Amino acid sequence: MTLPFSIDERHRIHTTQLDVPPRLLLGPGPANVHPRVLAAMSLPTLGHLDPCYLELMDEIQTLLRYVWQTDNPMTISVSGTGSAAMEATLANVLEPGDVILVGIMGYFGYRLADMASRYGADVRKLTKAWGEVFSLDELREGLETHRPAVLALVHAETSTGARQPLEGVGELCREFNCLLLVDTVTSLGGVPVFLDKWGIDLAYSCTQKGLGCPPGLAPFSMSPRAWDKLQKRRSPVANWYLDMNLLNRYWGSERIYHHTASSNMNYGLREALRLAAEEGLEQRWQRHQNNARLLWEGLADLGLVCHVREEFRLPTLTTVRVPEGVDSKAVARQLLTDYNIEIGLGLGELAGQVWRIGLMGYNSRRENVVLLLEALRKVIANGKAIDIVN
Amino acid sequence: MTLPFSIDERHRIHTTQLDVPPRLLLGPGPANVHPRVLAAMSLPTLGHLDPCYLELMDEIQTLLRYVWQTDNPMTISVSGTGSAAMEATLANVLEPGDVILVGIMGYFGYRLADMASRYGADVRKLTKAWGEVFSLDELREGLETHRPAVLALVHAETSTGARQPLEGVGELCREFNCLLLVDTVTSLGGVPVFLDKWGIDLAYSCTQKGLGCPPGLAPFSMSPRAWDKLQKRRSPVANWYLDMNLLNRYWGSERIYHHTASSNMNYGLREALRLAAEEGLEQRWQRHQNNARLLWEGLADLGLVCHVREEFRLPTLTTVRVPEGVDSKAVARQLLTDYNIEIGLGLGELAGQVWRIGLMGYNSRRENVVLLLEALRKVIANGKAIDIVN
Repeated sequence: MTLPFSIDERHRIHTTQLDVPPRLLLGPGPANVHPRVLAAMSLPTLGHLDPCYLELMDEIQTLLRYVWQTDNPMTISVSGTGSAAMEATLANVLEPGDVILVGIMGYFGYRLADMASRYGADVRKLTKAWGEVFSLDELREGLETHRPAVLALVHAETSTGARQPLEGVGELCREFNCLLLVDTVTSLGGVPVFLDKWGIDLAYSCTQKGLGCPPGLAPFSMSPRAWDKLQKRRSPVANWYLDMNLLNRYWGSERIYHHTASSNMNYGLREALRLAAEEGLEQRWQRHQNNARLLWEGLADLGLVCHVREEFRLPTLTTVRVPEGVDSKAVARQLLTDYNIEIGLGLGELAGQVWRIGLMGYNSRRENVVLLLEALRKVIANGKAIDIVN
Repeated sequence: MTLPFSIDERHRIHTTQLDVPPRLLLGPGPANVHPRVLAAMSLPTLGHLDPCYLELMDEIQTLLRYVWQTDNPMTISVSGTGSAAMEATLANVLEPGDVILVGIMGYFGYRLADMASRYGADVRKLTKAWGEVFSLDELREGLETHRPAVLALVHAETSTGARQPLEGVGELCREFNCLLLVDTVTSLGGVPVFLDKWGIDLAYSCTQKGLGCPPGLAPFSMSPRAWDKLQKRRSPVANWYLDMNLLNRYWGSERIYHHTASSNMNYGLREALRLAAEEGLEQRWQRHQNNARLLWEGLADLGLVCHVREEFRLPTLTTVRVPEGVDSKAVARQLLTDYNIEIGLGLGELAGQVWRIGLMGYNSRRENVVLLLEALRKVIANGKAIDIVN
């Protein structure tokens, strides 16, 4: 072969066969993946317009509607991670100048506000201490003051472990004629979510938490009301990749090529959703609740305090206050090196103050709780002479 | 568990265990995946900040630099498909009002223009018949006329099978003080690409073609010149998910969380890149060339005509003119149902006029060429009484 230049070999490194440690992922996500999901992902790749793949897309849509409890036709998996689907909700309904009211009670509220401002929206913020949630009265006051086109809330704030109650918020948004956008990244598949009954117009999630898949895809759903706002836009959606007008022509009956969707990733998502349908939502939510309670009791036995009060505490993700004099990073590092257990550190305002412990999807199991508690007890006790019961 | 509503079971479908047909993917992509890549993908999931995963990210960066022949520090895998990385190149360097000159000689040139206009750029088009390429003189004339901030070209136009020569274009862009943006979706890993020596400032690709991975990630690279334009922006990057300022803080030394990258997908990409490093670029490009030549000779023996003249024909993707009186869709359908072979149909202006045959990555093998040619001969001969040699 005649080449115009000689090949530069400097970056041609020779790596070993990949080997990864058997981590137990008990942080804010990803969680460990059900073996059936990994097995499904390694089936042969299909083309993104193969009749067999199109059938699988339909199954994914139906099963996503089940886990989200929605009839929304536009319910799909976005070819990106949860943050891409977050951006998709905003990019499709916000036009420059639209007022959006964002409820900020942690890191991901700020992210919503940041993204929305990049699309030229007039961003108004309703803030709350990290770990608390908004009351219905506070939301009403916010809507009265700001009269937004969209109210954005985080159902399960991954940075704080707080669960924002959503009962009555949909009615409120209808009263004020605005769309309700909700982050269900850390709730879908682990915590009760009723998209339609709660009147949620735009929702996004991820695959790697309550659904027990690897990261890489992101569930997205929009109601007919949100679809209507999209159709009435005066400007095109700035984000081509996430433009639901285009994606609808691929996911809907037209089957027009948009991008090359990942069949292997969607095999995994289908299997994860199939597992959820086999288990049943109520059973699944109950399992998450039971194992979280076991964790909370065990933490209390160790003298550790949860950051969020129980009423609003997420069963999927628990923030635990770091005791005085304990180095949170050192503890997390030792859990990883000595026990192959990953837990999360505090983010943003809670950096250094909490650990984040996830029990999500396939990982919400009694044996994981028992192991974590015992490992945590040993690590904290070894590291520092603090008062740990036992 | 007390629930506010009863669970709607209508979408709780019970699906069978996933089984997919063993397709031979000889269309425009995805191609079949090397078994070692699928095996790597099913290793246990790692957290996106796990020290072992961070090491793997470094390896991916180095190996991407090898296959692209670049030293660009900002060389990463975007958590989306090729179209997301395409959008990333534009979103990061274009500001509202910036002039971009797009060379359009097929479908993906139009996509670039569409995306660029959504970011408020002043889009100028240089067009060419589908299947042809631009000469250096035509590009010079375009630059003289439009004085753009960015010149965007498609190296390997997946809709036409044409290879745009890039020798001298980088020098031209420096002369006119503009950035050179190049689509290498259907060239990377199969066709010579010399990012640095050709003076390419922004490049994107996909994983599912020449690299032999499933779709789902997208290689992205930007030169220090392009990085400089990003740093001098007056407005923030509208696209949060693809903002390279933020992604650099994750891929660079800071390791600040941005999104939850897919460890499993990146395991696959690492293995695919490792295979490329084992084979060596020159060997790999030569293999693609050899098998393409075998295909072209076989097509000629069947009396079939390639759409692009040989000088500019891509070895990775061949467009074949559909003979008079033959239904291109029926032939493709029969190849799929009778032989499990997927080939592509014509796109855009070439709809109904060509088939698109891909020999990419792991699929660029002699046995695939032989099988396809024989299956194609039988299907065309059976379907229509047309003159096929033999």
